[in-house]
Amino acid sequence: MKNNTVTAPRGFLVAGMACGVKKSGKADLALLVCPTGAKAAAVFTTNKITSAAVQVCKEHAKSPEISAVVVNSGNANACTGKTGIKNAIKMCAETAEQIDADPRNVLVTSTGIIGKQLPIGKITKGIAKATVELSASPKAGLDFAKAIMTTDTKPKQAVRQVEISGKKVTIAGVIKGAGMIAPNMATTLCFITTDVAISKSLLSRALKAAIGNSLNKLTVDGHQSTNDTAIILASGLAGNRPIVTQCPRYKKFTKALLGMCDDLVKQMALDAEGATRMFKVVVKGASTKVDAAKAARAIADYPLVKCAVHGGDPNWGRIICAVGSSGVKLNPNKLSCKLGDITVFKNGKPVKFDPKKASKVILQIEHTITVDLRAGKQSDFCYGCDLSRDYVAINADYHT
Amino acid sequence: MKNNTVTAPRGFLVAGMACGVKKSGKADLALLVCPTGAKAAAVFTTNKITSAAVQVCKEHAKSPEISAVVVNSGNANACTGKTGIKNAIKMCAETAEQIDADPRNVLVTSTGIIGKQLPIGKITKGIAKATVELSASPKAGLDFAKAIMTTDTKPKQAVRQVEISGKKVTIAGVIKGAGMIAPNMATTLCFITTDVAISKSLLSRALKAAIGNSLNKLTVDGHQSTNDTAIILASGLAGNRPIVTQCPRYKKFTKALLGMCDDLVKQMALDAEGATRMFKVVVKGASTKVDAAKAARAIADYPLVKCAVHGGDPNWGRIICAVGSSGVKLNPNKLSCKLGDITVFKNGKPVKFDPKKASKVILQIEHTITVDLRAGKQSDFCYGCDLSRDYVAINADYHT
Repeated sequence: MKNNTVTAPRGFLVAGMACGVKKSGKADLALLVCPTGAKAAAVFTTNKITSAAVQVCKEHAKSPEISAVVVNSGNANACTGKTGIKNAIKMCAETAEQIDADPRNVLVTSTGIIGKQLPIGKITKGIAKATVELSASPKAGLDFAKAIMTTDTKPKQAVRQVEISGKKVTIAGVIKGAGMIAPNMATTLCFITTDVAISKSLLSRALKAAIGNSLNKLTVDGHQSTNDTAIILASGLAGNRPIVTQCPRYKKFTKALLGMCDDLVKQMALDAEGATRMFKVVVKGASTKVDAAKAARAIADYPLVKCAVHGGDPNWGRIICAVGSSGVKLNPNKLSCKLGDITVFKNGKPVKFDPKKASKVILQIEHTITVDLRAGKQSDFCYGCDLSRDYVAINADYHT
Repeated sequence: MKNNTVTAPRGFLVAGMACGVKKSGKADLALLVCPTGAKAAAVFTTNKITSAAVQVCKEHAKSPEISAVVVNSGNANACTGKTGIKNAIKMCAETAEQIDADPRNVLVTSTGIIGKQLPIGKITKGIAKATVELSASPKAGLDFAKAIMTTDTKPKQAVRQVEISGKKVTIAGVIKGAGMIAPNMATTLCFITTDVAISKSLLSRALKAAIGNSLNKLTVDGHQSTNDTAIILASGLAGNRPIVTQCPRYKKFTKALLGMCDDLVKQMALDAEGATRMFKVVVKGASTKVDAAKAARAIADYPLVKCAVHGGDPNWGRIICAVGSSGVKLNPNKLSCKLGDITVFKNGKPVKFDPKKASKVILQIEHTITVDLRAGKQSDFCYGCDLSRDYVAINADYHT
């Protein structure tokens, strides 16, 4: 597939450019337009402090049809009071005017520094310029991906195709950030385009399920930012028989959507600040799904586990300690742990293993830590990345 | 005061020496004896995986009178199954035989690597040797403090005196570790001696209260280890009118005990791996005490806040984000934050401040971050320390 950007599905025009929010002069304004109107769904941060952009976007996302998404990077428009809300609305209004749409049908997101007002004049001028550049080309798609970046080292995109009722359906996504990990940055933004024909309610259900099993499974430092937002727009131009029930076509679509999101989340984990590799924690044998997720997250969040992964150290004691400390129900005398396929702890006791082989497993770009609590039949997973000196360097040396 | 060790209160003999658990040849065996018998109380880790030492110690701590505490460092005796339990009991039995006491009146604690059986022969020989060395000298007290260390860079001790019913009462404590922060180490051990005359039930209440407001308020990486234990022994030799109710004498005692524990916990925070400074987070205006503690801990645990403290960066956005992400009830439009005495955020909006002055506040050995949630009247606090490259270096480069 040649085009791996958000313009791959039919019906989308995008642009990405510099409008002067970032002092560096790097691209900081992105525009995504669906001229025929798109069904849309969105999920937002659960942080109780939300940016002005999130507050406005939440309202507009209720519209039955969405015409465009406008994004700025370099400034989060968070903790900015009434002026912030006005500015977020202004971004929607300016976009709507440029493309001749209803402002309530425009979604807005921001990412960057917290607590500073947007340079709204620069942004509105930028929107006007970006409108002229709108294109369905792969280059425009890449420009869009670059314009939403903050401390990301590379654009992160993925695309999937799936046949639904004899028609080729394309799903594409672009993502920036990795949790609230950047210096003063409010972080994760994810934009997904697809040409599938689907009802708004099922699109929303599909997005929630996919994000729940991908983006929400990654922990970099255990926090959600004030700005985290994921948006999906469906143009409906693929020509498939519209999906209006949770039929096999719906399942085919959600499977492809999850695969695309999983691809994005892995790219994000590996581009987390200072990260050199990632890992997946699978917790089995939990008495509840909540317990499984809690234990998996406790392991993936534990700085000592993250340091051990960085050092390639098969230090299972830290994993067991994190599990015990997480408060979940477990059977201490039946507890087991594997690093990749190597059993290191079984029935509550250490197992002799080859530390060199185990170290090789950990030093891969991605490996799996499996813990069996032996307290029930539920399981869940979590993605994590290693903790390096560079994480500290990036986040301590940078000054606001 | 000349003697600042656990032998400062009347009635205690101690020894610390090397018995061969640590390959380095450093001191790894410590013995604390109260020949006249002591009232004792103890608090233990809430980790669901506990060491064999903790399991045995919990049982023995129920005895009305305690004769001795035996400690080894270098091996945690955790995840060691039935053999581990046998070895912990053996340590008590050997100590009891040497000092002619009941084994059930001996407490045992271990700290060090997880998942390896104790070299019990070396330890029992060591106990016999240590018994000969028992002394009430300050030197013996310092030997004790050194023998319980693992990755600590220095011994950590504190002592307080208080007059109760006309008699001088002494309280002394020694501590090692700082949360589950050491490579493969299961960590915090705290031993407190006092000559106060007090009932066992009130001694237990006093210990729980003091630990709850000192040790339990420090977070280094957010986890409790498999071995965390704090023990207090009261010889009753101060000659004070025995404390048997929650009278003013009890309050005097608990205040001094808390002061001593607070001293220890600050020493521990500053000796946490890679730590260069510490901070206190005070959360006010919470709707419940639980919310206040949760928000304070969320801030102190947040890697980005810890990195900002390391870099001396007045990055209040990270603090606000951590609070919002903690899930506690808060009033976004009334939320405020101070760094030391400098208001940086008020009524949900940024306040202009001098970043150089704020940076100076943060670069002190200890500073206070205050957050007012404006959602109620409850408050609580938490201690934290900065996150440095050395933390990563220590915990990633070390191999099991």
